[in-house]
Amino acid sequence: MIVVDSMLKGEGTEDGVQINAVDFFYAAMPEVTLDADGSQDALLVRVRSDSGLEGWGECEASPLVSIAAFVTPRSHGVCQPVAASVLGETIEQPADIARLSANLRRNSMDLLQAAHTWSGVEMALWDLLGKHHGLPVWQLLGYEQNLSKQPYASLLFGATPEETYKRGNDAVAAGYTAVKFGWGGFGGGALEADRDQLRAARDGIGGAQLMVDAGQIWDDDVDAASLRIPLLEESGVLWLEEPFSPYDYRAHAELARRSPNVSLAGGEASHNPEMAKNLIRFGGVRFVQIDTGRVGGIGASKEVADFAAAEGVTYVNHSFTSHLALAASLHAFAGQASSALCEFPLALSPLARAVTTVALEPDAERRVSAPGGPGLGVSVDLAGVGQYLRDVEIRVGGELLTAVAV
Amino acid sequence: MIVVDSMLKGEGTEDGVQINAVDFFYAAMPEVTLDADGSQDALLVRVRSDSGLEGWGECEASPLVSIAAFVTPRSHGVCQPVAASVLGETIEQPADIARLSANLRRNSMDLLQAAHTWSGVEMALWDLLGKHHGLPVWQLLGYEQNLSKQPYASLLFGATPEETYKRGNDAVAAGYTAVKFGWGGFGGGALEADRDQLRAARDGIGGAQLMVDAGQIWDDDVDAASLRIPLLEESGVLWLEEPFSPYDYRAHAELARRSPNVSLAGGEASHNPEMAKNLIRFGGVRFVQIDTGRVGGIGASKEVADFAAAEGVTYVNHSFTSHLALAASLHAFAGQASSALCEFPLALSPLARAVTTVALEPDAERRVSAPGGPGLGVSVDLAGVGQYLRDVEIRVGGELLTAVAV
Repeated sequence: MIVVDSMLKGEGTEDGVQINAVDFFYAAMPEVTLDADGSQDALLVRVRSDSGLEGWGECEASPLVSIAAFVTPRSHGVCQPVAASVLGETIEQPADIARLSANLRRNSMDLLQAAHTWSGVEMALWDLLGKHHGLPVWQLLGYEQNLSKQPYASLLFGATPEETYKRGNDAVAAGYTAVKFGWGGFGGGALEADRDQLRAARDGIGGAQLMVDAGQIWDDDVDAASLRIPLLEESGVLWLEEPFSPYDYRAHAELARRSPNVSLAGGEASHNPEMAKNLIRFGGVRFVQIDTGRVGGIGASKEVADFAAAEGVTYVNHSFTSHLALAASLHAFAGQASSALCEFPLALSPLARAVTTVALEPDAERRVSAPGGPGLGVSVDLAGVGQYLRDVEIRVGGELLTAVAV
Repeated sequence: MIVVDSMLKGEGTEDGVQINAVDFFYAAMPEVTLDADGSQDALLVRVRSDSGLEGWGECEASPLVSIAAFVTPRSHGVCQPVAASVLGETIEQPADIARLSANLRRNSMDLLQAAHTWSGVEMALWDLLGKHHGLPVWQLLGYEQNLSKQPYASLLFGATPEETYKRGNDAVAAGYTAVKFGWGGFGGGALEADRDQLRAARDGIGGAQLMVDAGQIWDDDVDAASLRIPLLEESGVLWLEEPFSPYDYRAHAELARRSPNVSLAGGEASHNPEMAKNLIRFGGVRFVQIDTGRVGGIGASKEVADFAAAEGVTYVNHSFTSHLALAASLHAFAGQASSALCEFPLALSPLARAVTTVALEPDAERRVSAPGGPGLGVSVDLAGVGQYLRDVEIRVGGELLTAVAV
């Protein structure tokens, strides 16, 4: 952080920017299905300053509920709306964003949804601060380097092993050297069905790295999960992701003990840094996966990344929405040399693809990096996403509360 | 549970009740201040069955945000509105409520606020099921006895030591033999100020049991908390409640190690049973405090109570809202002989007092018990609470979503 402080001082930017407006944009596909595809809707956040700058972020959360958490009337001193911790505040240094995050945690202690809402707001504050200083967020975070990462294709299992095979095959044909499959009923039926899916995945991707996401399917049933370990070993799986409820450290630790060859991964549900640290401390995960749009934003993500590095655990981004969220995720661990994998969502909805003007594509060496421009380094395409926007109106006691732009 | 099953069968009630309607009632004081008084607003839930019965519950949560979580459009397969896990469902046995709770956890896995909304709905389902079978909830839960508890007066520290003294004095004059003080800046200023408050509290209550609630004031600062331990010991404090963020088990465990004479208490923020179990397993708390209106309802509360009993930890209810919520809390641990204390909110807002037709008063021996009538055994006074109700209107894409009765 010393590096950044001196840089900022060197530029003579002593004045901060005041946050004058926070607007939410709720976008959704015309039909939202029951698929485990988190890109079917999106909640974008725009913050605007007195100086005319704007910053953008994205919550990985229920849009309506997260908007309600921003505008709700207060319930008491530590159950205040998210708005109370940001509107009218001034930021000048990274420490100011940390200060607002601390205020939010206290002011909205009893408002459960606040963490999800805040994650997108916080992201937008970093984008704004980066633009204010003319620096990319990774540099504001104190990183000395923006290291490229190996993207892994994040896919859902097919309805049949044949479909899984084809998806894997297409991913490696497109140049991916690591592929993750998840959901699609894996772990919830017969062992043979899981074995067939895993073999199809392995056959489809050849020698590429293979990961599996169980989507909490076994809840707290360590024995059910253990039965799959030999199948995962047989197919050379690097990690088994989210076998259980994200709060059940005991189950994670027990499975980790029983699975010396297949590592456990988890953490995407963390809505504060401590949850992720606990999964490392008490759950024995070897890969900690953080969604910047849930954990409290970029500062909270970096806190976990630093902790993971110190513990010898690999930090990985969790990203299944737009490339705005993906860019924010990349900044958060851009300088972490020990964390070289990046989740790269391959099958985004048209809406998620429409959010940014340009997509983050792997470079010639098939690596991805945080964008180099000021702030997050991506631009939101409001016109492109326009057709997906949904109007929101919330009234309490007749009074219109929503700060929702459409 | 065997006892209950045979009782239900003995009565020949083989048919369940179908949940046809779930309505929310958002009540608030005309002015909601920044005080740490959680009774300034309330979210009541009414479930109605095809058989014409109704059950009532209360969420200890932001009313607007919790309503939004019930009605929100789905985001994807595991980010569904709470409504999807209850409307149209049939319940006949306690196991049916557990089944719906499990469905909710899966269907709304990524909807953070869902746990708070569900807590009130689940409570109302128990009330309904109890009325259907003509049995009190404590009996449906499988308890063989409804044991009376020692109520402790739950108070906020006064603005001055003199005020604290008077509040404590009034409480023991009213017959309370245990008193808890909390918030009011305790722990956030000079050590001397804390010492003066503690001495005033002790002087005010004489030989009664004294507890202190720090309201997460030290976040993760074990040293700041440790400095207060000698003061708490000097005033003979039984427990120190919520010293830190509820997720920071490491800090709890370290403080527990440094405080052999003053026990740690916590758990009110738990929004699932695992969080509370972790605070016991990894945080070293000796008293686990559960808010039935947050943890997932009565079934989730009982799960924690059973776990605590097995671990030799004392279960205590967390109640700072109406006597509807208090009754639900009492049913959840009615038969736990090792948990004999009950938080009893003494300074409720007029609105919170208006929620029920009758208040739960301590008996001649100054003990409180779960009501003996069918269901929760308390009646909601809709007319009484009427003046505090706030109309809620939520529209997405022009469509009215709210299922809010006023």
